[in-house]
Amino acid sequence: MSELRVVPIAGLPEIGVDHDIAEEIVAHSPISLADGDVIVVTQKIVSKAEGRLVPAAERDSAIASESVRILRRSGGMRISETRHGFVCANAGVDASNVPEDQLALLPVDPDASARRLRSRFEHLAGVDVGVIVSDTFGRAWRLGQTDVAIGVAGIDPFVDHRGSHDSYGRELTATRICAADELAGAAELVMGKTEGIAAAVIRGARVPRGRGAAAEIPRAPADDLFR
Amino acid sequence: MSELRVVPIAGLPEIGVDHDIAEEIVAHSPISLADGDVIVVTQKIVSKAEGRLVPAAERDSAIASESVRILRRSGGMRISETRHGFVCANAGVDASNVPEDQLALLPVDPDASARRLRSRFEHLAGVDVGVIVSDTFGRAWRLGQTDVAIGVAGIDPFVDHRGSHDSYGRELTATRICAADELAGAAELVMGKTEGIAAAVIRGARVPRGRGAAAEIPRAPADDLFR
Repeated sequence: MSELRVVPIAGLPEIGVDHDIAEEIVAHSPISLADGDVIVVTQKIVSKAEGRLVPAAERDSAIASESVRILRRSGGMRISETRHGFVCANAGVDASNVPEDQLALLPVDPDASARRLRSRFEHLAGVDVGVIVSDTFGRAWRLGQTDVAIGVAGIDPFVDHRGSHDSYGRELTATRICAADELAGAAELVMGKTEGIAAAVIRGARVPRGRGAAAEIPRAPADDLFR
Repeated sequence: MSELRVVPIAGLPEIGVDHDIAEEIVAHSPISLADGDVIVVTQKIVSKAEGRLVPAAERDSAIASESVRILRRSGGMRISETRHGFVCANAGVDASNVPEDQLALLPVDPDASARRLRSRFEHLAGVDVGVIVSDTFGRAWRLGQTDVAIGVAGIDPFVDHRGSHDSYGRELTATRICAADELAGAAELVMGKTEGIAAAVIRGARVPRGRGAAAEIPRAPADDLFR
């Protein structure tokens, strides 16, 4: 295996509605994009480019309309199942890194957002890349948040080892890694939350190319032992 | 921010009881270890070096003795809370990448394992590194597994943004990233499950140095909305 590089893309301008994020990434990436790279873009700038901002005063109604179910409440925080099937705090409605008195909602269809970005990268730079739209989610059982994939294009979100064999020749029966979430988390490590770095290029990830989608990641409620 | 490199360490020999893993990593790393690197080592080889193997026939009693509580059952799989406080399948008792007819248990104290490795790296290579012992855990709500930290030494597992300010000057009130889990996941991306790569060096991670421990990561059962 060769090494993995996670390269932050600094210097992106403030993103507004209909801003071409892909063009900004191509222009600001410190390395030229190449086939097989995975470009991780935070939900926040995708939502801004898609005009998914609402006045902060509409917080409660925004969370309600973005949720199909509230799983738990704790103080002012709700753990929601979103329209997309994601389980996260407040249906992903969030004030950080958006202008004062506004809130960002998740993209309407983050997989479609990822596919559009992927097409733009192909058009602008002639490259066949994977794209991940990432967001910062809490977890059950473990403190702290990690970045995970809420939109995916050009790659399979999973690396499925089921049916392959370990170094002793034993068949692996259960292991299917959510590489898209690990890639989102790796990108977070170079982004920080306060430096305004909202995208990264990952080079050397051996994830399967494919027509995958983050919509495959949520566990079906009926199969989930913890909701 | 500068880039992050995740470098797999290939060619480690089969690890047996009392094998000096740190010495093998220093000998086999394709880059010389340096101050500030984070060395990620899989639980499996740590458990082997610590003799944490039991006969496969003792599976049920091993899972029972490694668990303080069974949260859910599904088929032959139990979701356990381990003695360490981790929530995972079958208390981490696992057959993959161990000799036939045996099972590996989690280390007795994975933070102590990480601290010992860190001391050995300092002794052998004169470097001040972070160490993470990683394992592959499933999650609530999301399909697939990701690698997370079960042992930590030399770094704070969290990057705490609470009290800092976003690019608009707004104070972040809730964001505390579990960087140790993101680092463990990043290392998994270069390891695979079938190539026998059981360690990686991460260079460029801006995680706070400190006397942190993975024991800080599990959410206290009383504070956990999902168990």
